[in-house]
Amino acid sequence: MCEIYQGAAMPHIHGGDIYRNRVSMDFSVNVNPLGIPQSVRQAVQEAIGDCERYPDISAERLLHAVSRMHGVPTGNVLLGNGASEILMAAVHGIMPGKTVIPVPSFYGYEYAAGAANGEIVYYSAKEEDNFRLGKDLYAALSEDVDLLILANPGNPTGNLIGKTDLIKILSHCKDYGIYVLVDECFIEFCSGDCSVISEINYFSNLLLVRAFTKIFSIPGIRLGYLICSNRQLVGKIGRHLPEWNLSCFAHAAGCACASEMDYIKKTAAFMRTERCFLAEGLKQNGYKVFPSEANFLLIYSKEPLYERLLEQGILIRDCRNFRGLCEGFYRIAVRSREENAKLLRVLQEVKS
Amino acid sequence: MCEIYQGAAMPHIHGGDIYRNRVSMDFSVNVNPLGIPQSVRQAVQEAIGDCERYPDISAERLLHAVSRMHGVPTGNVLLGNGASEILMAAVHGIMPGKTVIPVPSFYGYEYAAGAANGEIVYYSAKEEDNFRLGKDLYAALSEDVDLLILANPGNPTGNLIGKTDLIKILSHCKDYGIYVLVDECFIEFCSGDCSVISEINYFSNLLLVRAFTKIFSIPGIRLGYLICSNRQLVGKIGRHLPEWNLSCFAHAAGCACASEMDYIKKTAAFMRTERCFLAEGLKQNGYKVFPSEANFLLIYSKEPLYERLLEQGILIRDCRNFRGLCEGFYRIAVRSREENAKLLRVLQEVKS
Repeated sequence: MCEIYQGAAMPHIHGGDIYRNRVSMDFSVNVNPLGIPQSVRQAVQEAIGDCERYPDISAERLLHAVSRMHGVPTGNVLLGNGASEILMAAVHGIMPGKTVIPVPSFYGYEYAAGAANGEIVYYSAKEEDNFRLGKDLYAALSEDVDLLILANPGNPTGNLIGKTDLIKILSHCKDYGIYVLVDECFIEFCSGDCSVISEINYFSNLLLVRAFTKIFSIPGIRLGYLICSNRQLVGKIGRHLPEWNLSCFAHAAGCACASEMDYIKKTAAFMRTERCFLAEGLKQNGYKVFPSEANFLLIYSKEPLYERLLEQGILIRDCRNFRGLCEGFYRIAVRSREENAKLLRVLQEVKS
Repeated sequence: MCEIYQGAAMPHIHGGDIYRNRVSMDFSVNVNPLGIPQSVRQAVQEAIGDCERYPDISAERLLHAVSRMHGVPTGNVLLGNGASEILMAAVHGIMPGKTVIPVPSFYGYEYAAGAANGEIVYYSAKEEDNFRLGKDLYAALSEDVDLLILANPGNPTGNLIGKTDLIKILSHCKDYGIYVLVDECFIEFCSGDCSVISEINYFSNLLLVRAFTKIFSIPGIRLGYLICSNRQLVGKIGRHLPEWNLSCFAHAAGCACASEMDYIKKTAAFMRTERCFLAEGLKQNGYKVFPSEANFLLIYSKEPLYERLLEQGILIRDCRNFRGLCEGFYRIAVRSREENAKLLRVLQEVKS
């Protein structure tokens, strides 16, 4: 499964392959449908003047911006060239002999964990539980496990682990000496206080991964970060990040993003309405829609949808190659009302 | 030595710290004084429209551009978020138990090699040999060595290892099962055919590292690459690169750079003249100037220069913290004629 992706034909394991498809509407990728905030676009534009200089290797300004944004000390933050770099560095820092990954989930966890050459155990969430983590997860979290990688909300499922449940998992793992990497890359799309960022001082085994990529719609820029109260672990992981890992654009965009708290609130409110609209529409079209708190919906369709929609220039995420899913599962991003309505119309039209 | 650089006070181990100094002329950083080519600036400008899309994970267009540029198959190329990412991935891929690094050299080799937690042996080039590699290097290249990291031309020395000598080293290392990482990040500033890229098919132990950063003056963008004929090794190293490691700006700039062969020729010609002008001027000022084929000069001065120049808004690289150097060594980049002349004038003025 863990092939290199450069120079080789890439298996279709990620969404958004607009480079090898004719696409007019992309529902396969999970970025903010409200787009990049104006202040961030402006900052990126101005950063063109910084291309000819080495970025600040200490990333002082950005570190302080992220630290202020979350109310955590700069020493508890590591900045990465996308969350994917943080995942890889975390694995290199921990070198887990055994990693547990609940599935279905983002392929990137498996890719990163594989770099340690250790054992990976997949915990299968059940369809009848709407792919929520069950109590049987604890059976997989034995003392010989070094790392658990979770997404909250889950991807491609969109389901949110309740804070109380997650704290129980963290607590169990702390007792068993298991690091828990919680990927909160989509958390800003959820409503309410669902992040475990409030718990970082209580759990030295908690590695919180965040990104500006999705919420601020800047996947092209690459910027993610780790928040962790365990300084020794932060040091170990940081040691595996290359020097100057952030571009001048990431520095500039990140500083602008960190001041856009209102944009996050606005997005969450928008998402609540649109997610509901799209989910209802899909249900009316006869698809099974799994409960989601994120900016995308996992659906099941008896009829094949991917090719039919692609013929209409619409790209969705075929989930058959997600470990734990099979043919018939699709992930559909929540986009603007206009796009969501268009998708629902096209789905009506292509019905056999 | 190998501290993490984020969140902690950074030891002054790299040049170009314009973020914590008032600088009007920066001679500490080694990028092309002719600046970023117009076509590259244009490409970066246009790439702003790509921020909201995930970059092509297969990097097809850029891989083909780099492969065409060097006449090597795409499967022999790995693209990195700067040469520093390639260095780190190479170390993670090889996990050397013992690495040999000739010094004085770029701190980044030590930083990257340290990520493997193996032994690092420093071969000390001698001042009386103008810091050229001596025959005694071979004594350090025993069978228990896994990796040799060399720069050609050297940094901060600027000296070039002759192709015949380098081939001998490669051959010895091949016999002894030692990988040789040759960093050619500054090779385009040298005149003549000095690269060992012609040798990649003969030496499966050769890892050639290149970057667009220096020659195209885009350190803010981050783009380096590995060329290696050993596909198994390419696979191993690529496995440690995070997914989507290149920004949309790196994709766009890189494709534009790969078509700028004339810019490289123009730069090399310019550099030949200006390096000579600056070296002569420095010698006339009484400094010892070491022979250099690169875009910078290593000098020795009995009088302290760093602070005195900084007071005049001029930043040079104090080399005292380069392993193998000490107080009195400075690295000075070759800049434009106007800047070089200004530096020489200021050096006259600040003389005690």
